[in-house]
Amino acid sequence: MGWTEGFIAVDWGTTNRRAYQIDAQGKPGDEFEDHKGVLSVQSGGFPDAVAEIRQRLGGLPLLLAGMIGSNRGWKEAPYVACPAGIEELVKGLVWAGDREAIVPGVSYIGNGRADVMRGEEVQLLGAVADGSVDPMGMVCHPGTHNKWATLRHGKIEEFRTVMTGELFSLLRDHSILSDLLQGKVEANEAFKDGASLALNDAALPADLFGVRARVLLGQAKKEDAASYASGLLIGTDVRIGLSIPTGAQIHVVGRPDLTRLYAAAITQAGRTAVELDGEKCFLSGAREIAKRIS
Amino acid sequence: MGWTEGFIAVDWGTTNRRAYQIDAQGKPGDEFEDHKGVLSVQSGGFPDAVAEIRQRLGGLPLLLAGMIGSNRGWKEAPYVACPAGIEELVKGLVWAGDREAIVPGVSYIGNGRADVMRGEEVQLLGAVADGSVDPMGMVCHPGTHNKWATLRHGKIEEFRTVMTGELFSLLRDHSILSDLLQGKVEANEAFKDGASLALNDAALPADLFGVRARVLLGQAKKEDAASYASGLLIGTDVRIGLSIPTGAQIHVVGRPDLTRLYAAAITQAGRTAVELDGEKCFLSGAREIAKRIS
Repeated sequence: MGWTEGFIAVDWGTTNRRAYQIDAQGKPGDEFEDHKGVLSVQSGGFPDAVAEIRQRLGGLPLLLAGMIGSNRGWKEAPYVACPAGIEELVKGLVWAGDREAIVPGVSYIGNGRADVMRGEEVQLLGAVADGSVDPMGMVCHPGTHNKWATLRHGKIEEFRTVMTGELFSLLRDHSILSDLLQGKVEANEAFKDGASLALNDAALPADLFGVRARVLLGQAKKEDAASYASGLLIGTDVRIGLSIPTGAQIHVVGRPDLTRLYAAAITQAGRTAVELDGEKCFLSGAREIAKRIS
Repeated sequence: MGWTEGFIAVDWGTTNRRAYQIDAQGKPGDEFEDHKGVLSVQSGGFPDAVAEIRQRLGGLPLLLAGMIGSNRGWKEAPYVACPAGIEELVKGLVWAGDREAIVPGVSYIGNGRADVMRGEEVQLLGAVADGSVDPMGMVCHPGTHNKWATLRHGKIEEFRTVMTGELFSLLRDHSILSDLLQGKVEANEAFKDGASLALNDAALPADLFGVRARVLLGQAKKEDAASYASGLLIGTDVRIGLSIPTGAQIHVVGRPDLTRLYAAAITQAGRTAVELDGEKCFLSGAREIAKRIS
C-alpha cells in the first residue's frame, strides 16, 4: 500500500507554499517554502508550478493540501462533511494527474452554523494519528482564520472558525489604529490586560476603539498598543472557542509564535494549553494519507 | 450676546466637510458639502481652506466642529471631560482667529475605559437643546465610529464608541469577504437574521467568517451577504450599547440611511427607536453654542 518510493507533501495556501520531501520510510528530507501561493499562480499555470516543485525535490508523487483544492486552485476538491477523519480525506482525494492527489477540505453544517476549512484538517488529524492529541480532545489552530475543532473517536466532529488573524491584519494595515499596531506583539502584561478584558467583556468592536482612546487620553502607552489589541482579539477568540463544551486541556497546533499567544490566553481562561508545532503535525497527517493510497 | 450678524457652522470631519450659513435670526441659508476633509488639507493650508468657505457663504464668523480640532486639524482643541453640556463646550472653545472658534471634543474616563468623540457632541447636545431628546435619555449616533451616549440633566454623562462603520468598510474593501459585501445593505430579512444572531450570540469574529461559509455551502444567497454582515455588525453594536442601563426609548441621531438600520436592530432588541436627522441636530447645537459667544 501507499506510494512506496516516497512522496512530496505540499501545504499550498493562499499566499505561501511549503513543500517537503518524504522518503520511502516516511522520513522528511529536503524542503522549501516560497511565496507562490494559489493567488499568485495564473489560471492554467499550475502544471508549471508543480513541475517546479519536482525540479527542486525530485520526481516523486505529490500530495497537495490547502487552497490548492479550492475553486481558485488547480482542481477543486469538494469539502468532506464532518465527522471527518483520515479515511474520509482519503476517500475525498481528487486526482489532478496520475501521481498528483489533492486533499479535500472539511465542512460543517449544524447548530444553525456553516463552516469550512482547507489545509488545517491535515494538521489536526495528523496530530491525532501520531498520538500528540487525544482522539476525544479539542484542538485550536491559530492562523489567518483560527479553527477550534472538537474530535470524537479521532475524527473532526465539529469546528468553528474565528477570523482573528485577518482582523488583526486589517486593523494594522488599513484602520484608524494602523499607526498604533506596527509594534511587535508579545505575550506580555499589555497582551494579558487585553485578553483579560476580552475573556470577560464581549464587546470587541468597542474595546478596539479603546486602544486608540486609551493612548490619546494618557491611559496606556503607545508601545503597548499592538500587544494589547492582539490580546483583545485573541481573548475574544478564546472566549468563543471555550464556549464549546470541552475538557480542561486544549492542544494548540500551528506556528510557534502564534501558539504561544493562544496558550497564554487559554491559560488565563483557566484551562491547560499544550503547544504543538503545526509543521510536524502536517507531516504526520500527510504520511497517514499517503500510506492509504493504493 | 452671540454673533449678532449670523455665522457659518462647519462640521469638518476626516474626509468631508459640510458648511451652513446661519442668519442673525438663527435660520439656515446656503450650504455646501465637499471632500476637503482634514486629511486632505496640507499643514498650513487651513487659512486658505477657511477663506474658501467664506468666499462661498459670506464673510461671517465661523464655528468649526469635528476633526478640525484634532492634532491633525487647524488648531487642537483639547477634549472636555464628561459630564459635558453646551456650557462646557463653550468654555472649551479654542480660537484660531478673532472670528474663528473651534469646538472641543469630549472625553470619558471611567469604569476601566477611556473614550473620545469629536463632532458628535454638537449633534447630541443640539438634540437636547431643541427638545428632540430627553435630557435624561440615551442617544445612539451611527457613523464610522458609532457612539452610545447617556445624558444626565442635559449633559453627556458617559459614552461608548463602537467602530462598526469602520469594520464594515475594512471587511468590504480589504478582506476575504470583500466580493460578498459589495451589494446594497438594507434592513431586510437577511439583515434581521444577522442582527438576531449577533444580539444573542457574542461571537462576531466567528459569525463574520460564517458569512462566507454559508454561501460556499449553499446555506445563504450571495446577494444577501452584505445585509446579513451589516446585521451582524450592527446587532453586535446594539447588544453592546444596550448593556448600558437605560430606559426603553433610544434616540438615533445621524444620516437617515444609517439611523434606519440601527432603528431596525434596536426594535429587534425590544426597545423603541426614535430616528433624528443628524444635520438638523448639528444646526441646533451650533446655534446653542453661537448664542453664548460674547
